[in-house]
Amino acid sequence: MPLTNRTGIFSEENRSKREELIGRLQRAYWMEIETVMSYMANSINPDGVRAREIVESLEQDIQEELGHARQFGERIKELYGVVEGSMEFSPEQKYLQPPEHQTDIVHVIKGVIEAEKGAIEHYSRIIEFCDGLDWVTQDMVIAIQHDEEGHLRLFEGFIREFEAEGLV
Amino acid sequence: MPLTNRTGIFSEENRSKREELIGRLQRAYWMEIETVMSYMANSINPDGVRAREIVESLEQDIQEELGHARQFGERIKELYGVVEGSMEFSPEQKYLQPPEHQTDIVHVIKGVIEAEKGAIEHYSRIIEFCDGLDWVTQDMVIAIQHDEEGHLRLFEGFIREFEAEGLV
Amino acid sequence: MPLTNRTGIFSEENRSKREELIGRLQRAYWMEIETVMSYMANSINPDGVRAREIVESLEQDIQEELGHARQFGERIKELYGVVEGSMEFSPEQKYLQPPEHQTDIVHVIKGVIEAEKGAIEHYSRIIEFCDGLDWVTQDMVIAIQHDEEGHLRLFEGFIREFEAEGLV
Amino acid sequence: MPLTNRTGIFSEENRSKREELIGRLQRAYWMEIETVMSYMANSINPDGVRAREIVESLEQDIQEELGHARQFGERIKELYGVVEGSMEFSPEQKYLQPPEHQTDIVHVIKGVIEAEKGAIEHYSRIIEFCDGLDWVTQDMVIAIQHDEEGHLRLFEGFIREFEAEGLV
Amino acid sequence: MPLTNRTGIFSEENRSKREELIGRLQRAYWMEIETVMSYMANSINPDGVRAREIVESLEQDIQEELGHARQFGERIKELYGVVEGSMEFSPEQKYLQPPEHQTDIVHVIKGVIEAEKGAIEHYSRIIEFCDGLDWVTQDMVIAIQHDEEGHLRLFEGFIREFEAEGLV
Amino acid sequence: MPLTNRTGIFSEENRSKREELIGRLQRAYWMEIETVMSYMANSINPDGVRAREIVESLEQDIQEELGHARQFGERIKELYGVVEGSMEFSPEQKYLQPPEHQTDIVHVIKGVIEAEKGAIEHYSRIIEFCDGLDWVTQDMVIAIQHDEEGHLRLFEGFIREFEAEGLV
Amino acid sequence: MPLTNRTGIFSEENRSKREELIGRLQRAYWMEIETVMSYMANSINPDGVRAREIVESLEQDIQEELGHARQFGERIKELYGVVEGSMEFSPEQKYLQPPEHQTDIVHVIKGVIEAEKGAIEHYSRIIEFCDGLDWVTQDMVIAIQHDEEGHLRLFEGFIREFEAEGLV
Amino acid sequence: MPLTNRTGIFSEENRSKREELIGRLQRAYWMEIETVMSYMANSINPDGVRAREIVESLEQDIQEELGHARQFGERIKELYGVVEGSMEFSPEQKYLQPPEHQTDIVHVIKGVIEAEKGAIEHYSRIIEFCDGLDWVTQDMVIAIQHDEEGHLRLFEGFIREFEAEGLV
Amino acid sequence: MPLTNRTGIFSEENRSKREELIGRLQRAYWMEIETVMSYMANSINPDGVRAREIVESLEQDIQEELGHARQFGERIKELYGVVEGSMEFSPEQKYLQPPEHQTDIVHVIKGVIEAEKGAIEHYSRIIEFCDGLDWVTQDMVIAIQHDEEGHLRLFEGFIREFEAEGLV
Amino acid sequence: MPLTNRTGIFSEENRSKREELIGRLQRAYWMEIETVMSYMANSINPDGVRAREIVESLEQDIQEELGHARQFGERIKELYGVVEGSMEFSPEQKYLQPPEHQTDIVHVIKGVIEAEKGAIEHYSRIIEFCDGLDWVTQDMVIAIQHDEEGHLRLFEGFIREFEAEGLV
Amino acid sequence: MPLTNRTGIFSEENRSKREELIGRLQRAYWMEIETVMSYMANSINPDGVRAREIVESLEQDIQEELGHARQFGERIKELYGVVEGSMEFSPEQKYLQPPEHQTDIVHVIKGVIEAEKGAIEHYSRIIEFCDGLDWVTQDMVIAIQHDEEGHLRLFEGFIREFEAEGLV
Amino acid sequence: MPLTNRTGIFSEENRSKREELIGRLQRAYWMEIETVMSYMANSINPDGVRAREIVESLEQDIQEELGHARQFGERIKELYGVVEGSMEFSPEQKYLQPPEHQTDIVHVIKGVIEAEKGAIEHYSRIIEFCDGLDWVTQDMVIAIQHDEEGHLRLFEGFIREFEAEGLV
Repeated sequence: MPLTNRTGIFSEENRSKREELIGRLQRAYWMEIETVMSYMANSINPDGVRAREIVESLEQDIQEELGHARQFGERIKELYGVVEGSMEFSPEQKYLQPPEHQTDIVHVIKGVIEAEKGAIEHYSRIIEFCDGLDWVTQDMVIAIQHDEEGHLRLFEGFIREFEAEGLV
Repeated sequence: MPLTNRTGIFSEENRSKREELIGRLQRAYWMEIETVMSYMANSINPDGVRAREIVESLEQDIQEELGHARQFGERIKELYGVVEGSMEFSPEQKYLQPPEHQTDIVHVIKGVIEAEKGAIEHYSRIIEFCDGLDWVTQDMVIAIQHDEEGHLRLFEGFIREFEAEGLV
Repeated sequence: MPLTNRTGIFSEENRSKREELIGRLQRAYWMEIETVMSYMANSINPDGVRAREIVESLEQDIQEELGHARQFGERIKELYGVVEGSMEFSPEQKYLQPPEHQTDIVHVIKGVIEAEKGAIEHYSRIIEFCDGLDWVTQDMVIAIQHDEEGHLRLFEGFIREFEAEGLV
Repeated sequence: MPLTNRTGIFSEENRSKREELIGRLQRAYWMEIETVMSYMANSINPDGVRAREIVESLEQDIQEELGHARQFGERIKELYGVVEGSMEFSPEQKYLQPPEHQTDIVHVIKGVIEAEKGAIEHYSRIIEFCDGLDWVTQDMVIAIQHDEEGHLRLFEGFIREFEAEGLV
Repeated sequence: MPLTNRTGIFSEENRSKREELIGRLQRAYWMEIETVMSYMANSINPDGVRAREIVESLEQDIQEELGHARQFGERIKELYGVVEGSMEFSPEQKYLQPPEHQTDIVHVIKGVIEAEKGAIEHYSRIIEFCDGLDWVTQDMVIAIQHDEEGHLRLFEGFIREFEAEGLV
Repeated sequence: MPLTNRTGIFSEENRSKREELIGRLQRAYWMEIETVMSYMANSINPDGVRAREIVESLEQDIQEELGHARQFGERIKELYGVVEGSMEFSPEQKYLQPPEHQTDIVHVIKGVIEAEKGAIEHYSRIIEFCDGLDWVTQDMVIAIQHDEEGHLRLFEGFIREFEAEGLV
Repeated sequence: MPLTNRTGIFSEENRSKREELIGRLQRAYWMEIETVMSYMANSINPDGVRAREIVESLEQDIQEELGHARQFGERIKELYGVVEGSMEFSPEQKYLQPPEHQTDIVHVIKGVIEAEKGAIEHYSRIIEFCDGLDWVTQDMVIAIQHDEEGHLRLFEGFIREFEAEGLV
Repeated sequence: MPLTNRTGIFSEENRSKREELIGRLQRAYWMEIETVMSYMANSINPDGVRAREIVESLEQDIQEELGHARQFGERIKELYGVVEGSMEFSPEQKYLQPPEHQTDIVHVIKGVIEAEKGAIEHYSRIIEFCDGLDWVTQDMVIAIQHDEEGHLRLFEGFIREFEAEGLV
Repeated sequence: MPLTNRTGIFSEENRSKREELIGRLQRAYWMEIETVMSYMANSINPDGVRAREIVESLEQDIQEELGHARQFGERIKELYGVVEGSMEFSPEQKYLQPPEHQTDIVHVIKGVIEAEKGAIEHYSRIIEFCDGLDWVTQDMVIAIQHDEEGHLRLFEGFIREFEAEGLV
Repeated sequence: MPLTNRTGIFSEENRSKREELIGRLQRAYWMEIETVMSYMANSINPDGVRAREIVESLEQDIQEELGHARQFGERIKELYGVVEGSMEFSPEQKYLQPPEHQTDIVHVIKGVIEAEKGAIEHYSRIIEFCDGLDWVTQDMVIAIQHDEEGHLRLFEGFIREFEAEGLV
Repeated sequence: MPLTNRTGIFSEENRSKREELIGRLQRAYWMEIETVMSYMANSINPDGVRAREIVESLEQDIQEELGHARQFGERIKELYGVVEGSMEFSPEQKYLQPPEHQTDIVHVIKGVIEAEKGAIEHYSRIIEFCDGLDWVTQDMVIAIQHDEEGHLRLFEGFIREFEAEGLV
Repeated sequence: MPLTNRTGIFSEENRSKREELIGRLQRAYWMEIETVMSYMANSINPDGVRAREIVESLEQDIQEELGHARQFGERIKELYGVVEGSMEFSPEQKYLQPPEHQTDIVHVIKGVIEAEKGAIEHYSRIIEFCDGLDWVTQDMVIAIQHDEEGHLRLFEGFIREFEAEGLV
């Protein structure tokens, strides 16, 4: 369906940029989906009192990350793209796999930091890409970016404590 | 940690059965996780008035299926297993990938039926396996089974209508 | 217990009218109870996407109709009558029995229209009967009447669509 | 629609058992529906302070019993049966008809006990019938059975009091 | 302020009827206020298990009766009258004063019946008075009337039980 | 669709009266819609502490008036009419336009009084028109009328204060 | 019933003090009940924008004062007294009767101040009376006292404004 | 009132731009108000099962669009403008008037698409206009824009289905 | 940890009084815990309509008494004591054991009265003990005392009724 | 009361088994009650940041365990037994008494593990005992068993952490 | 901790800008905290009916402003700064101190206007500073800015009224 | 305004005591306000898993302490004082300033203990001061005192753990 008489990101002349943007949003979508998987496992596996704080934090984040995935997916739809099916998914978060010992909570914290950093990096690029091109996507991604920066800082705080205790 | 003085599925003599059960629950866990992915995409992509009913049904089911995944994961933990990370996931639901045309709702319905049938088949075997061995897992899976049988019947009803209209 | 010193519908001189009114309310009570049965079956049996809209509508109406039945029953009590037991019930809604094929949603819609028309007809007569005789019953039945007229119009709209598509 | 490749209660070889089970569930469905009628009348008719406790108890149970009816009906649907319409209903609860005097609360209590005993008897047989054949139906009926055993015991307690006071 | 260009109850020619109506509503207002007082005392004083049912019923009714008082008061205001102050109140419900023994619940029940009968009698006359003159007041009073008829019937049921037991 | 076998307002012989009633309800519908517009502007524009009371009152009324509009619209539908589209709307509430100075709250109060008086006048006629012809519409409009009489009296009270202060 | 073996306010030697306390609580009870009447009328009668603040404040206080009345009444019961019936009520709040002009809000404010002052005076004496005698009553009345002091201060603030404007 | 010492959009030098912006927001305000009218009529008029999905969607959107109107109106106020009264309204949505046949749902869908496209076009220009001039208005309009793009895409999906079925 | 620089009950000179107070609070704690046990059993065992009122009252009180126990326990902690474990518990409420016949409700009522009297006696002494020594504990116990006096009076009312009927 | 015509666990021939089952349920009841006591003390006594996680977990479990106790108690009643009174209670959880130092959280964790293991062991035997004899009790105990297995696993995880840190 | 591999505001090259931004956010944080203090006092001190509107408005804003403070504080944290402690606070809002007479509400209104203007001025500069440097902070501050512009406009409206009445 | 005819703390003879009391309440008010500032900073700054428990505890306490401040402020008002503005505030909690390292949680805990101790000391004196002079203030401060004693004990428990681990 030709997007007759539409402007901005929806205009004919911006077709290739729109396609590129859809590709980037699709990648963001998969990052969030994999994070759901990783947080699910990491909110079940860890043992220990100290781990409870991490576990409860991840448990709550699952819904938030799922919400981010939905936002990315729905924006793909609005941009006339199609959200990919499960066969297109390929995992990347090696650093968030279960550790050898389930009491090794440092392993989990480092994994979360790695994942958040990757997401922030990728989302920053989408924000730049949208500048002056697609206000709506840009605004949406800035808000998600804020969530991720908050998570990152929280888990960096966790790792600092372990560093202060000489455990890392 | 040796499970000293435990009985039933937790006893030393049932160790290999326990490991087999963990393997089956892990597979059930991945089936539910993939269903989350598939329902997410299929609750965003389809176009059309008729599709709304399907879309809204899948949207609600995402939370239910995620809840099933959590139940399977937590039971693995209770059985002294470790829930696998995202690198172990490999997709199987070929029949639930996005169709060529987003108005092709029959494609989605058939995919859901296929997925539910697979789950019911697998869960039935877990129920049988647990009989007289692990009452708790059995009871939990029967309740999940009931949910899936209800979903299956609903979507079979959808396909019957299309058959009655000669559209399948 | 003689209703000493009461006026209006409760007065001695209006005793036979009061008994007649109780009879009419009893009939209204049974109509609502049978509707509960019919809507229960017809919110479970139908197959198909299109049927969902009907099914969900009937599902919600069950509580509303049960509430109407209670209102009729309690008014009978207030008028010093006794609500009949299940042995006095005899079904009448032939047009609301399950169709041969569960995808035959037109059959259900026509049945609902028939039932609502019968109720409206009967309630209109109660309203007329109460005029200047029993304000309270009259006011209560007018409100119920409004609900039924709304249902009727909704289902007539459904049948019009099928007529427009030449399916009736 | 042949239930290709299904197992357990859904398998071809268990077809006649499935049909028998549907018949039994249909009977259970009608028992619950008639109970709704009986409890409705018996939560409106009785007079007296003592009756309030009974009346309020029955009032709450109406929703519970209606829920049971829906569960039975939906299970019939899942087993590929069709829930019967109101013309198939024939009342049986003679003991739950309104008593001669509306202050005769013993009559109501005895009626409820009779009804609950009948239901428990019938549901026990369904549970036995499903053993090793249909786990899902069995699990559902056990839960309903528990509700009914609780109601029965409560009302037996009521009758004991009247016996202790020499009123029965 | 002359009610220029108003019709019905608000018209100049109906001025004296309006004033009469205000007087009747004022009386209804005081009846409800006194009922609040009577129900307050009678929901605190009585002793005994049997009394609990009465006490809880009256406790809930206090809010309902206060609401009626407010409705009458606000209608007086809408009809350009002024709600009277406490100095104009003079008690009438002799039959609802505390009995000699706080276990004498029959005394309370009879008092409530007396009060409700008086209210119903008075409200009936207001309804008649408003016919064809003031639809809004009429409709409001009919709804209140319904509440009172329900209360009356409930407490008559209580007294019937005591009669059946030969305690009245 | 001929309204075969219907009685009262729906009968063939009352067709022209029904059409007239639809016309009157349509006018009532537009009055409520325009009131929504007027209250929206007048709950945003006014300046001042004193104005807050008015502004908050109008803000709450917007939802109430929108609800009235919906009731009128749905009754038109039930009477087999069609609710008009925006092109048929023509504004009439000259007295409710923004005043020259946004602190001129007397202007707003007078405008509201004017609007309410017009509505009450029009609704009174509908109530009379429906008498003995259409109980349901009559009952619905009486309830709306009550709301409007309450609003009118409140704003008349406001203007009285300004009169008492010699500001009008 | 002799209060065998009870201590403090419930002891035999404190019988006459207990009776005196009951008398004081009864007076407090009637003060709250009359306040309910006065606030009801004064939350309906006043006209004007400025009056809205008073009216809404009194409207909320009605429930609070009714709650105080109930607390006083229940404490009377706990002290083995009997709450008086409506025939014992005699109004005292002359200063809270409706003013000549319904825009005369100063009249209402002064009346509220008068009523609160009287209550505070009376409650202070009860608190003193209970000291070292009945901790429970004392604690309850202190909390009620706090509410009344807050109301008093609020309405004194209102009158100050009118004084500052030279309107008193 | 001179906006002394204010910067950005509120500065003296940007006065004419501010006035232009107010004009554009006023137009946006009216577009939303007319949409409320159109969605109200189109959520009442249509007949048919298929129409229910549209009707329910529009019904929910009415509150959302009313909220948008309020946001535009309040921003006008913050920019020191005055929201226009109903006499300034002139309808434009010819394409959203009721169709000849109330089962013609394609007519409604096309009308919604037309309306959303117009709004998106207009809002895009406001966003551009505000760039570097008024961050607050820009941010607010981007969020509203997102809502409209979502609605548009949903209804485009509806029309695609009808195209796929050859009904357009 | 020496409570350096603390005053009142926490001062060094009041150490022995603090220890005595902890002992009394510990006893109060066990009284409440035993009451939980007794009310649990007595809210399950009794048979009969009349018993329902008692049963429901005790059922609600379980949470309240558990809350009291927690308050006592937490105050012990705040006073630098340690709450005792289950091995220190020894039952005392002989009068609250299940009666021979479960319809013997008088037995239960008398038991509750006995328990409440004991608690009130003990709490009164704590209140006296705290006077001028520990305001916080005193204030907390007065509030709990009020609850118990209310319960006592309610159950004394129950027994009065049985006395009036000559059943005690 | 002879359980005439009852089947299964309620039959005459199963009388001794029923009595044995009641005995086992009584023991389970006491285990849960003692756990309530132990968790209450252990959710108040412990000191320290790390202890908060344990304390909050136990605090929530108190309600859950109390609920289990009620379920066991009510099943005893349904099986025609009588729940024992507090004099029959004798404590057994030596391992859950307060430790010497309130910062010794390992002591508490080990105590919880011991208690949960004991419960699981006992409940497993009830489940086996009920097999083919009493479906309802069996189903109820399996669900409770699941809760306890989850608690056990959580606290085992806690102890593992301390082992990993060499603190056990 | 070096922010290795971070971009934008978190990059090494933007270190000094980040520090400057933290300083500005710290100032914004203190402005909001002081506003909480000022609004607290000014929502308690003022006397008079007219003051209620101001008082209630400020009361609600306290939570909003506290929320702003938290947002500023958490952004400082995310930017790797440290929120200052109370010793760093120095008050600036001279214009928001309590007036000589508590009925002098104009004093309060002017103080609020002054405070809001200062905040808007400061926040505008942060928004400019962040442009192209830190999208997330910018987006957050724009939203807060919108709140403050709304408050300012409301209080300017209040002052306009007093000007119109010649009281300023 | 002379407090004519008032007694107790409000009497003329107690004027100087009232002024002294206002001064003490003002100091309590500022202590609570500074605590809000300190807890805000200390619920944002700390890093680490262990810190989460502290952070969440302080986060919840902010609202509680703000509520205390309001209670102190409103009591000042009721005593005819004026709550001071922000210029009168001077910080004192040196021990609650951010530590050098944000993982230094012991610093924060000690600061909280210091603050709570100071508050308890000051409030104890107010309670003594009010004895026999102002029951209402006394009762209010005792309740606040209880909150603070609970906080203190919790944080003392935290420090005990660190002592036990040899970290203090």
